[in-house]
Amino acid sequence: MSDIVRIDTNQRMSRVVKAAGLVFIGGQTSADLTPDVKLQTAKVLEKIDGFLDKAGIDKTRLVSAQVWLADIARDFAGMNEVWDAWVPEGCAPTRATVQAQLASNELLVEIAVVALA
Amino acid sequence: MSDIVRIDTNQRMSRVVKAAGLVFIGGQTSADLTPDVKLQTAKVLEKIDGFLDKAGIDKTRLVSAQVWLADIARDFAGMNEVWDAWVPEGCAPTRATVQAQLASNELLVEIAVVALA
Amino acid sequence: MSDIVRIDTNQRMSRVVKAAGLVFIGGQTSADLTPDVKLQTAKVLEKIDGFLDKAGIDKTRLVSAQVWLADIARDFAGMNEVWDAWVPEGCAPTRATVQAQLASNELLVEIAVVALA
Repeated sequence: MSDIVRIDTNQRMSRVVKAAGLVFIGGQTSADLTPDVKLQTAKVLEKIDGFLDKAGIDKTRLVSAQVWLADIARDFAGMNEVWDAWVPEGCAPTRATVQAQLASNELLVEIAVVALA
Repeated sequence: MSDIVRIDTNQRMSRVVKAAGLVFIGGQTSADLTPDVKLQTAKVLEKIDGFLDKAGIDKTRLVSAQVWLADIARDFAGMNEVWDAWVPEGCAPTRATVQAQLASNELLVEIAVVALA
Repeated sequence: MSDIVRIDTNQRMSRVVKAAGLVFIGGQTSADLTPDVKLQTAKVLEKIDGFLDKAGIDKTRLVSAQVWLADIARDFAGMNEVWDAWVPEGCAPTRATVQAQLASNELLVEIAVVALA
């Protein structure tokens, strides 16, 4: 349907959906399972950059983000260090960060965002 | 207010809210508490189908979904089996799935979605 | 960019972002860390009222909410008591409430909302 644009779609999920003027990017995780939250966060944000690009925008258009950490006490500071360096000055989205066990034990961080098309 | 349509509203929450061209359906759980994630997922998706219908649309309009599982290691595959069969081909929303303890110990899965009006 | 309005923005996050006709308020927590979920919920909702006001709207415009509780078995009823009293009659948003460890052990509740501009 032309008012919904789905990008990288399979039977389970789309990586990106554009609708109602917004760009939704689902929960992204790192393919590199090295147990280092800074590395995994960097990989996740690199994927998000790629999906924003496929949607025709970039990270200056971020509206809202959710971050899940497998161990928030241990990894909150490390995730934030990489996150803060990634966010364009003056363009920070709203954010909520909570702890959650993710789809595999090796995943330390998952991030979903909404942006403006 | 005519620019916000609320469906099945009580003092705590609405099951559905239409606004800004989108349809929001809050976190739905199964009334049947049988400890079987496939059954509970099917019941949740049946409820979501009903709420989409009340909003005048159907599951081909799905934009985004969040899934919470009480035990992601045990139940991820079972939930996905029912989910994958439910999603219309080519219409998958973005999705994030994490583990979370839900409002009662008997609830195994909760799903919230956003769709396009 | 004039089509995105960011309020109370730092390098990590904005407290409020307006875009696509919606107002996004990120996950808010209580500055008062007294271990009382009713008190913390009241403080969170007071902050949300303030951010809605900065966005030029009020709680009658709520569309969707997510609530995270550090101990859902213990604190669900207490949070709901304060929440139910706060929601304007007939204006309840959709909602999802799950348990999650929050950014510090003393935080008992975190709430994020989406409203209509």
